[in-house]
Amino acid sequence: MRNISVIGGDLRIVKLIEILAKDDYKIYTYGLELAESISELKNVIKTDNLNEVINKSEIIIGPVPLSSNKQDVNMLFSDKKLSVEDLILSINDGKIFIAGNLYENVYRLIENKNIKVIDILKREELAVLNAISTAEGTIEIAIKETISTIHGSKILVMGFGRVGKILSKMLKGIGSDVYCEARKYADLAWIKAYGYHPVYLRDLDQNLGKFDIIINTIPHLILNERRLDLVKKDCLIIDIASSPGGVDRNAAKSKNIKVIWALSLPGKVAPATSAEYIKETIYNIFNELDNRV
Amino acid sequence: MRNISVIGGDLRIVKLIEILAKDDYKIYTYGLELAESISELKNVIKTDNLNEVINKSEIIIGPVPLSSNKQDVNMLFSDKKLSVEDLILSINDGKIFIAGNLYENVYRLIENKNIKVIDILKREELAVLNAISTAEGTIEIAIKETISTIHGSKILVMGFGRVGKILSKMLKGIGSDVYCEARKYADLAWIKAYGYHPVYLRDLDQNLGKFDIIINTIPHLILNERRLDLVKKDCLIIDIASSPGGVDRNAAKSKNIKVIWALSLPGKVAPATSAEYIKETIYNIFNELDNRV
Amino acid sequence: MRNISVIGGDLRIVKLIEILAKDDYKIYTYGLELAESISELKNVIKTDNLNEVINKSEIIIGPVPLSSNKQDVNMLFSDKKLSVEDLILSINDGKIFIAGNLYENVYRLIENKNIKVIDILKREELAVLNAISTAEGTIEIAIKETISTIHGSKILVMGFGRVGKILSKMLKGIGSDVYCEARKYADLAWIKAYGYHPVYLRDLDQNLGKFDIIINTIPHLILNERRLDLVKKDCLIIDIASSPGGVDRNAAKSKNIKVIWALSLPGKVAPATSAEYIKETIYNIFNELDNRV
Amino acid sequence: MRNISVIGGDLRIVKLIEILAKDDYKIYTYGLELAESISELKNVIKTDNLNEVINKSEIIIGPVPLSSNKQDVNMLFSDKKLSVEDLILSINDGKIFIAGNLYENVYRLIENKNIKVIDILKREELAVLNAISTAEGTIEIAIKETISTIHGSKILVMGFGRVGKILSKMLKGIGSDVYCEARKYADLAWIKAYGYHPVYLRDLDQNLGKFDIIINTIPHLILNERRLDLVKKDCLIIDIASSPGGVDRNAAKSKNIKVIWALSLPGKVAPATSAEYIKETIYNIFNELDNRV
Repeated sequence: MRNISVIGGDLRIVKLIEILAKDDYKIYTYGLELAESISELKNVIKTDNLNEVINKSEIIIGPVPLSSNKQDVNMLFSDKKLSVEDLILSINDGKIFIAGNLYENVYRLIENKNIKVIDILKREELAVLNAISTAEGTIEIAIKETISTIHGSKILVMGFGRVGKILSKMLKGIGSDVYCEARKYADLAWIKAYGYHPVYLRDLDQNLGKFDIIINTIPHLILNERRLDLVKKDCLIIDIASSPGGVDRNAAKSKNIKVIWALSLPGKVAPATSAEYIKETIYNIFNELDNRV
Repeated sequence: MRNISVIGGDLRIVKLIEILAKDDYKIYTYGLELAESISELKNVIKTDNLNEVINKSEIIIGPVPLSSNKQDVNMLFSDKKLSVEDLILSINDGKIFIAGNLYENVYRLIENKNIKVIDILKREELAVLNAISTAEGTIEIAIKETISTIHGSKILVMGFGRVGKILSKMLKGIGSDVYCEARKYADLAWIKAYGYHPVYLRDLDQNLGKFDIIINTIPHLILNERRLDLVKKDCLIIDIASSPGGVDRNAAKSKNIKVIWALSLPGKVAPATSAEYIKETIYNIFNELDNRV
Repeated sequence: MRNISVIGGDLRIVKLIEILAKDDYKIYTYGLELAESISELKNVIKTDNLNEVINKSEIIIGPVPLSSNKQDVNMLFSDKKLSVEDLILSINDGKIFIAGNLYENVYRLIENKNIKVIDILKREELAVLNAISTAEGTIEIAIKETISTIHGSKILVMGFGRVGKILSKMLKGIGSDVYCEARKYADLAWIKAYGYHPVYLRDLDQNLGKFDIIINTIPHLILNERRLDLVKKDCLIIDIASSPGGVDRNAAKSKNIKVIWALSLPGKVAPATSAEYIKETIYNIFNELDNRV
Repeated sequence: MRNISVIGGDLRIVKLIEILAKDDYKIYTYGLELAESISELKNVIKTDNLNEVINKSEIIIGPVPLSSNKQDVNMLFSDKKLSVEDLILSINDGKIFIAGNLYENVYRLIENKNIKVIDILKREELAVLNAISTAEGTIEIAIKETISTIHGSKILVMGFGRVGKILSKMLKGIGSDVYCEARKYADLAWIKAYGYHPVYLRDLDQNLGKFDIIINTIPHLILNERRLDLVKKDCLIIDIASSPGGVDRNAAKSKNIKVIWALSLPGKVAPATSAEYIKETIYNIFNELDNRV
């Protein structure tokens, strides 16, 4: 039985602890005293001594993402406060620290220490799996925010990356008429292979007028004021690209085009599944660590 | 240019009028004075004289459904009141009256008149098309009311009728692991042919414990107290069967099992699409009327 | 351990015996002496005494189909000859006789006997399951007989019955652009719900010119000489409708249009799967017999 | 109207010429005198003077692949012989030469010349599109060479590259139970996202016994003698990996396991579609050339 220490986090981390406990890990927690569902689990030890929690395990799991303001550790199920700096400085040599969305200062703080730091959100497999939740959350929005069925609707997905691929598959599975925009010939070939309608970026303008819904996954301005003029008046635009998004929201507002900007869907739409994915990724990391020389 | 008269109804009827107007019909309306979107249409004449509206056209379209209380005509976009009896008595011989959910008293009122009455909700093609909207609305609920993705979830669809068939297809298209319950061998063969897992009614009990979501489409009590004991504690049950539904809701409540009873989804989820389907069905009716001797 | 007697048949019946033997039935066979694969099975007793074989079991399974010429029992794995009349007359009262494609004379022969006769090919569930094999065999032909991929091809499926439904699903699953012809409004609604392009029979002529492949499932002449003139020159026509088929083959020949008439695909394409389906249907029959009073 | 010169090739090149001619290019050909279908086309000029053909156009299209023996130019529709060396030496400065499967000696021959040489089979978009044909050809084999339907069969696809991805999608579309083997965690995540069963390479052995069909796309020995012992006796193995393939064919033979080694499927299965794909890729190349400074 291996120990794992967990510090802070949101509902996904709570669910993760439930799974790890079921898998027979012994879990020491800090900053999760308000999480009721794990209070009764016999493998889970809640404590309010940070150093003790850190000392108990080789593996320290932090929040995903670690911090929302680059200062305080995200601890949704705690009344306590903990700065990222204090947390990092508490971790002693020889530990493995896994958390999400690490940034420059975190790396600087551990620079001269012998700590292995892993940003789990940079793991490709987790990014792919999270795209499933994002796609599903987008579909919920598309059904809810229109007065038509998405079955039979013409939908443009802009960007054929992880979310673009999975979302297109799901939309087609429901019965939408799916168009995908891309700028690389190979992506257009894939779009065709998967049975969607390819829209080459240079032909975007002349196609924009036919869509009932446009979903953007590209994180830079594509639907600018000029292009918004080409869109159907009752078209719904869903922007799921991370900041700054891909839509000129002010222009859209003045043209009365409905834009919904949806961020961080995985944690909101399906925290239990997200926890499952984080667990799988952590186990992959364990596997890699076991196989290191 | 043919005339059509439209009396009362909800957003679907308003959208229907927009489509008919675009198709170059001239439309006389009563009981729709608050529907702004059709006020500016040049083919649409709003009036508050019921008899005039009826006299203008051979075809009279009423609400879908006609009445919610079997007494008053449903007129969501009107401050007026009109009884079903007064409406029916106003319709003179030679007319064709199309509305939804007609009931015994309506048929009795026209008994000795030469009026063709058509309950559009009894048309098989409309029932099939409405099942699309119902399925989609159910998916929205399933995504929203769970903390897991429906991708990868084990979902049981009870009943393999219109909604069961379309819903199963959509769920599989999103990536759920779909099980369908049926009691006829031929239905089980279809379920297998379409790639879902067949669950024969007599084997239902031993399977109930494995589902994350159960969706019932059968309008009589199947998930009784005894069977609810076999269901996973965190299973979500969505009952979309018409009254009395298929779930013992009191028993579920006392067992803390989440049940959502969702009715009349097409009009709520996708009124514009519903209007489109009603239009297609009306055109089919027109076609049949044109071909009568 | 129940006994089953099996008389004659083709590879499907041999495979069926293998499955029944594995399921612990004791099987007496006649007219299958050349079927090597079942010679070594300990539950299978080969004999050349017809009456003995019949006497051993309540259930007698004959060929599927029983006879190809309405005279001799189909016995592909035998050097013997047996007339249908002799077979039927040998069956004594109290037996259950299951075979395929029974015809009038068979029913007349048992008229005054107390024998339960079941034409297994009339069972709806078997008809559905066999449609899977037929659809798959059709796809093999479509890939083989064209110089294009069926992915991306425009394909018309005429008739939306069992094979039409399953074939359309598979073709779409491979990536074809699927059109389905039907004449009932409800079927057209289903076609739309499943995401194919509906072609109403009255609009067939104006659409015929756009298809790369046309697959007919309707057993009466639809692609007559006049319509064949509307078809693309290099269109492949696959006719899987039972005799007389739906294509004027002489006219097609004179116009140099390639027509492939494919019959009885299940037994040819997938005898092992067909045996599996026959077994399931037989078990359903057993179930019904067990539940009779 | 641009000129294009075409030298040698197989049916795909003939079909390509038909398409280019339809798109209003003027085409000079050498080594295609036996291709009847292009004889009557007014835009196509057949000649037996190699230098003249080369001089007429900036763009020279050679066979795909250029040579089967690294010596002679592939010219299926010609009685003439032409060495690769002679062809390359005939091409003068300023030309663009497009062909398939170029090799070291070709590059050496043009080393000091000002010729732009493009190996079209190295273009990612063509590789993706060709994978569609390969997948379809594999499905034809799978249907033909088994006595079961692939609907409902358990099929393992080894390798999740271009063909693995598209083939898995098509197989699932027909109704197979699809398992995909991969060794990268990210690929396993994709496999899960697309709804197939992931099989991690290290778990391959314990899974091998359950498959009805195994399709290998990995070009090095995976199904070695030891692993072949784990495979079901009546399992069909289809090896579509390029030489040396991934199956120990001798071992398989001695164990009586059926192995089909299928190479170069696109040209065999769907030459017309392949021509279409080559055309698209050539147009992409033209586009890139037009945009060069």
